[in-house]
Order: sequence, then C-alpha cells, then structure tokens
Amino acid sequence: MEKLSLTIDDIKSAAIRIAPYVRRTPLLQEEALGKILGCDVYVKPEMLQITGAFKLRGAMSKILTLTPKELSKGIITSSSGNHGQACAYAGEKLGIHVTVVLPNDTPPLKVNNAKRMGAETILWDRSYDKRWEKVHEEVEKHGYTIVHPYEDFMVMAGQGTIALEILEDLKDVETIVVPIGGGGLISGISTAVKALKPSVRIVGVQAAASPAYAESRKAGKPVEVPANPTVADGISCRRPGKNTYPIIEKNVDEIVTVEENYILEATKLVAKETKLLAEPTSCVVVAAVLSKKIQLRADEKTAFVLTSGNWDIDLLGKIYNDIKVEGVH
Amino acid sequence: MEKLSLTIDDIKSAAIRIAPYVRRTPLLQEEALGKILGCDVYVKPEMLQITGAFKLRGAMSKILTLTPKELSKGIITSSSGNHGQACAYAGEKLGIHVTVVLPNDTPPLKVNNAKRMGAETILWDRSYDKRWEKVHEEVEKHGYTIVHPYEDFMVMAGQGTIALEILEDLKDVETIVVPIGGGGLISGISTAVKALKPSVRIVGVQAAASPAYAESRKAGKPVEVPANPTVADGISCRRPGKNTYPIIEKNVDEIVTVEENYILEATKLVAKETKLLAEPTSCVVVAAVLSKKIQLRADEKTAFVLTSGNWDIDLLGKIYNDIKVEGVH
Repeated sequence: MEKLSLTIDDIKSAAIRIAPYVRRTPLLQEEALGKILGCDVYVKPEMLQITGAFKLRGAMSKILTLTPKELSKGIITSSSGNHGQACAYAGEKLGIHVTVVLPNDTPPLKVNNAKRMGAETILWDRSYDKRWEKVHEEVEKHGYTIVHPYEDFMVMAGQGTIALEILEDLKDVETIVVPIGGGGLISGISTAVKALKPSVRIVGVQAAASPAYAESRKAGKPVEVPANPTVADGISCRRPGKNTYPIIEKNVDEIVTVEENYILEATKLVAKETKLLAEPTSCVVVAAVLSKKIQLRADEKTAFVLTSGNWDIDLLGKIYNDIKVEGVH
Repeated sequence: MEKLSLTIDDIKSAAIRIAPYVRRTPLLQEEALGKILGCDVYVKPEMLQITGAFKLRGAMSKILTLTPKELSKGIITSSSGNHGQACAYAGEKLGIHVTVVLPNDTPPLKVNNAKRMGAETILWDRSYDKRWEKVHEEVEKHGYTIVHPYEDFMVMAGQGTIALEILEDLKDVETIVVPIGGGGLISGISTAVKALKPSVRIVGVQAAASPAYAESRKAGKPVEVPANPTVADGISCRRPGKNTYPIIEKNVDEIVTVEENYILEATKLVAKETKLLAEPTSCVVVAAVLSKKIQLRADEKTAFVLTSGNWDIDLLGKIYNDIKVEGVH
C-alpha cells in the first residue's frame, strides 16, 4: 500500500539508508557574502553532492525501499535534468536497470551523460504530460517502478535529510531558504524542520517566470500558471504537486518570487564570494535577499540551500563575464 | 631565538592553535574527474578556506606564536595576493595592526580588499626585492614583526596542517600533488607526510614559465630563473627560498612543470567536474596529469591540493567560456 504522508521518521530512516551512497555535505559560514546580504549567512553546498545536485538523496532514498522483485525489473523516470542523472547514477551503483524518458530536444550531451551511466533513454515529446503518459505506458509493458522527481514520499524523505544535517551543524539556525520547483525538496526540508525545531522559519523561492506555488498560495488552492522561460530552468513548474502542495501549505512560512536580473546577479555573486559553482536555479535563494523579498536581521542565522551546479560551464562562464546569455531576459 | 627547522610537532601544534580560526575543509572524492584523469581522485578544496585560500592557515599559525608585545606593535608582510589577504583578515579577527606592502600596479580592488579589513597598505616598487627592502625599513621604524609568505617555519607549519587533515580523511592515500610557488605549502605538507607516512609520494608542480625549484633540482643547487608571466600567477617565483629549499629537496619525491595551455584546460575541467571555482594556480596539479607529467595507476588514491579561488571572476568566466584571456599564452 502506498504511503499517504511524510513523517520525520521517514526522513530519519532515509538518512540511514542513503548514508553509504551520498556525500554528507558541510554547512559553510560565508562572512563576505553575509556582509553583502546583511545577515549571518550559511550555505549548504549541494553542488558538491555526488552527481552535482541534491537529487541523489531522493532517488537513492526511494530506490532503496524497493523489493528485490521491483529492483530486478528496474525503475523509470522522466527528467532531462538533475533527477534523471541521479537515477542513472543510482542504477549504475546498485546494478539495476534505469529508463529515462527525455524531451526530444534534450542536448545530446545530457542524453549521453545518462547513457554513459548505463541508463536506457527514450526521446519523447517536449510536453510534460505526454512524457509522463509514455512513462506509464512503459510501466505497463515492463513492470518498472516509477521514481518521480517530487511526488513520491520516499523521494521527499531523501531530500529532507538536508534539513537533518543543517540542524546538526547549526543548532540555532533561524531561517532556511530553499528553491521551489516541483516542491519535493522543500516538502522534505520543511517536514523535518517543523518536527524538530518548529521555530525555524522556512522560506521558499520561485522564479517570477514560473510562480505556481506562490500563485496557489495567494489563491488559497492549487492553480496552474504558465511556466515561462527562466534562467532558473531547474525549478520551472506549471502546477503544484498533488502530494507536495498540502505539505508546503502546512509547513512553509513564506513563498516569494524573484526576477531574472536578480537571479543572474546572484549567480555571479555566489561564485565570487563562496568559490562554489552554483547553477542559476540554486541562486534564486540569494536573489530573494538581493531583491529584498526576505526580511532578515543583521545577526539572523540564515541557511541557504544551494541545490546544484550542473549548468553548462560555458554558459556559466558567460554569466561570470557579464555576457548576455541567449534566451535569458 | 629563531627556529632553524620544521618538525611534525610544529605542525601538530599549529593545528591546535589555528583550529578556532580556520575552516576544517573536507576531502572530496571526485569520481567523474577520476575517470578523466585515470586515477582515484580526491581534492582538498582550499578555495573553501576562509579568505578563499590556504594561506590563512600559515598566517594564523605564525601570528598566534607572537608575544603580547609583538602583537601590540603589529605585523607586516608583502603580498598582493592570498597571503596579504590572509594577514589582513587575521589582523581584523585578532585586533592587531597589519601593514601590507604592495606593488604599485596592484589593482585597486585588491588594495581596497586589504583596506576594508582594516590593514594599512603601502604601494611600493614592482620589484620583489625592493618591496622587501621597504618591509625591513618599516620594521626598523615601527618594530613590526614580519610574517613572510613562505620563509617562516611557523607559516610552513600552518600550511602543513593540510596534510594532517588529508591523512586523517584518507588513511591509505598514496600520492599527494601540490603546487609550488615560494614553497611554504609543500614544505609543510611534505614534512608532515614524511614524518607520519613516509611511503606517500609527494609531487610538486610548477608552471613551466616559472620553474625555479624544478631547475634547482636539476642543477643540484638553488638557481635563479626568469619568472615569466603565467596564468598561474600565484606561484610565480624566481628563486627557491633559503629555508624551504632544503626541506623540499629532502622530502619532495618529484617536481614537474606544466605548460600554460594545460593549466587553462585544467582550470575549466576542475570547475566543470568538481563545481569548485579554482584559480589557475590551483589547477597546475590537474594540468600535470593532463600533460602526462605524473605516472598514476588507475586505482591510485591521489589527493590534489587545490590551493585557492581568488582570481577575478570575470577572467575565470572567460576561461570557462573558452575566450582568450589577455596576457595568457
């Protein structure tokens, strides 16, 4: 029977389960960045996670709950980004069959990344819904288990292990700022935090171009919005998840949105001050402070979750050199 | 009386002394980079050290051995780079007066960095020797204590703490690859390693444009060489240090040199695969493998010390975007 909720015990169990396979990332205090942002800054550098993104936590957490029969049949997902790569890596490590359904305009480099780790790739429609139809078709045919990037409680539990580590490293953390795309990451983090230390404020950040959760909160119910192009392409999302939405409404204190120019500025600033290569999606959390969307005291201990660093290095180079990046506003 | 040598006990003492002020950086296994370099790769990411470079270890180690009287008079050094910044930061933290003598063509940004941390800056001649004459003149006048970037045993002891951490995190490390500029870093690291685990191979890497230690080893005695411009500007050095040279000759197994094009290639590769922003000076260690100057088995546990990340972010952006960087060959 499928689980219908997410608990702190799920997250603690996930932490034990995934420990042999993921990196325990440090929490880094960043004085120089703090002077600029006007608070006591700590960053959780998940671009240093294996595969370059936090996604391995969730994928491993889910896969390690499967039965031997399920494992022998293999898993499937749809993601051209960090979650797809995490699944491919997990499959290689655990010796299981992985299928990734990709939009047919995925850059060959990303397709080959998945293939190199032994994953089967299926190039399919650009539309999100049509790709997931294809996933279900493949599940019918082959008996694969779906590892959804955010709608799965065991995936959320894996992402929530980030919060356990932050609370362990900084007992008196006051605010945690987290990007929201599908919502799996912030569901896991906020569930852990509100169970263990409810006074900690959780702030979610979306790109203004793709504000599904921010708009849904305003409307008081899940609403669908256009997902316009954004440099924070890892958190583009048209509608809240069925499973993540209620968790986020219950646990997340504030949801804010940030404009593209601030995301670009934050991307360069993070690299300059922290020496970490964060993709723009990661940097929305810093952009939210630069654009004054979050109120912070000068001594407020604030943890920023930097989710990933897998953007094209040539494009990052352009941002660092203040060169216009095509398709970015 | 001044110390005339460097011992493992000096390094162990330094580790205790500096612990409250420096970051205990992790040792990161890098599978993807390992596949490219053909060995089992670990990186010691000292760009994540406070001030963005390992230099804080050495500066703090030295300053924390001074007497109250010496501390009250203040310290002085000459360095436009990471050591100068480390001294300025240490001074700010400890509330002591710091003077940094800089070449008069130092970019205003770097001068202001030092000033913002409360350091006094003196712009002086571009020539290394003339700047050090000025340092001694100031010492005569004000009674400052010199914190030399590499010729000081207590500075070397601080840098050597990196080796203690590597050995703690990777007990069966086989090879450690370290950039050589003035030689303080590799003097500290090799002294610690040869005392604690002599079987570990220590490889030092210089830019071919500035090969003072490599040429001196060939000659069997310290020789002066031209320090031609190199993108690895942090390890430019005309002659071996009086105090570092004998330590390096005794403890360092191999000294190799790398060409500019490999340093640039390595700089981009390190960013792409590790998500760490390493300045070119750091990346000579990876360039040495790319240019086949180091023999490594596929399963050889090899630690690469990435020293720093304080290069101009716009210039790093150019390298990541494969744009020609002016003045680089």
